[in-house]
Amino acid sequence: MKKGNLLYEGKAKRIYETDEPNVIWIEYKDDTTAFNGEKKEVIKGKSRLNNEISSLLFAKMQEAGIQNHFIQKRSETEQLVKKTDIIPLEVVVRNIAAGSLAKRLGMEEGIPLKKTIVEYYYKNDDLGDPLINQDHIELLELARPEQLEEIRETALKVNGILTGHFDQCSVRLVDFKLEFGLDEHGAILLADEISPDTCRLWDKETNQKFDKDVFRRNLGSLTEAYEEILRRLKGETNHV
Amino acid sequence: MKKGNLLYEGKAKRIYETDEPNVIWIEYKDDTTAFNGEKKEVIKGKSRLNNEISSLLFAKMQEAGIQNHFIQKRSETEQLVKKTDIIPLEVVVRNIAAGSLAKRLGMEEGIPLKKTIVEYYYKNDDLGDPLINQDHIELLELARPEQLEEIRETALKVNGILTGHFDQCSVRLVDFKLEFGLDEHGAILLADEISPDTCRLWDKETNQKFDKDVFRRNLGSLTEAYEEILRRLKGETNHV
Repeated sequence: MKKGNLLYEGKAKRIYETDEPNVIWIEYKDDTTAFNGEKKEVIKGKSRLNNEISSLLFAKMQEAGIQNHFIQKRSETEQLVKKTDIIPLEVVVRNIAAGSLAKRLGMEEGIPLKKTIVEYYYKNDDLGDPLINQDHIELLELARPEQLEEIRETALKVNGILTGHFDQCSVRLVDFKLEFGLDEHGAILLADEISPDTCRLWDKETNQKFDKDVFRRNLGSLTEAYEEILRRLKGETNHV
Repeated sequence: MKKGNLLYEGKAKRIYETDEPNVIWIEYKDDTTAFNGEKKEVIKGKSRLNNEISSLLFAKMQEAGIQNHFIQKRSETEQLVKKTDIIPLEVVVRNIAAGSLAKRLGMEEGIPLKKTIVEYYYKNDDLGDPLINQDHIELLELARPEQLEEIRETALKVNGILTGHFDQCSVRLVDFKLEFGLDEHGAILLADEISPDTCRLWDKETNQKFDKDVFRRNLGSLTEAYEEILRRLKGETNHV
């Protein structure tokens, strides 16, 4: 497999074509952004950590039978994935009140939600990724109702699987963001990444944050936090 | 029926008890506010116009079999309604892109929507009435799923009825906000008001605005606009 032309450069990744038409080559970047790009920094090592963590978690998705885009890790900072047409929706699943949900509903951060919440945000930087509902999604033709139903069910299944794995590591899965894409047959695949950039992960005992909020809120070393997650997921330390 | 103690004073209405436990007495005010109370003015005559228009439109709801709170107009600026427990949801139905929808989705104002949009806002001034979805509504226990389904269906039915009436008057029903309440038996009644304060109403030919945007955007005399709507609804003039 050969790395071809750069297809797209996003805030956190570069995407290259390969000599296989349905395979793309992802290179994670150390660039770290928050608040729709307003806060920016280069954090050496983040690319490796996110690539490793996301590869590991997508392998678990594979084992659990969640259709997804992951093929294999290719290097410390690179991986191969199936090419998909990304659906411009950020699908957010929430177990504990935090971030924009706490603000929107006037809840205190850290309160466990009596009901798992699924939210859809329209992936559109110019509009600031607004919250939208199912009617908006149909209007914008982002997904058909039955596709959205499948996306929602998959997101809830992923929540169950991830919650279990993180619980084993003594980590609370507060919330996370997923993206989905359509493969060449129109099948919906879980895509993008699953990493501390896209999940809120708190220590079960101390509520210490091991996710991008460390960067957003200046809470210390981001790479140390992400290292801790990787270490725990690999089961290398006794963390309880 | 006697007017009793003041129960509540809102931005646009005063609510009194009566000697009937399940009947309340509504007095419309001339106070006009927008942008969550940031813009304020007293506009003489608005109370009468909204009371008349809302009474007239609720009578049409009655005829169409929409369960609602309206009993009767009591004076120029007052009406009697059934007491309900208001569900703290603003149910917005949209036929044409305008206002916050145009902004949220990056659409031009005035574009007819390919699909009718229903939105739910959490009625909470402190939070700025945020857009919420069905999961949030369940989490906050604002309505059970089957109640929300009934609310949505009623809102769409109301849209059909209102669109027809306004079309007869050569007025385009762009969007509108409804509120619902529960009566003493737990039945869901259409409540609050239906007036140019809560609907966007544009002339079918010229797109001239006959609604609260005249106040929000300083487009001229609000009472003249509302008078025009009342006149057309009463069929007093030939406006085509």
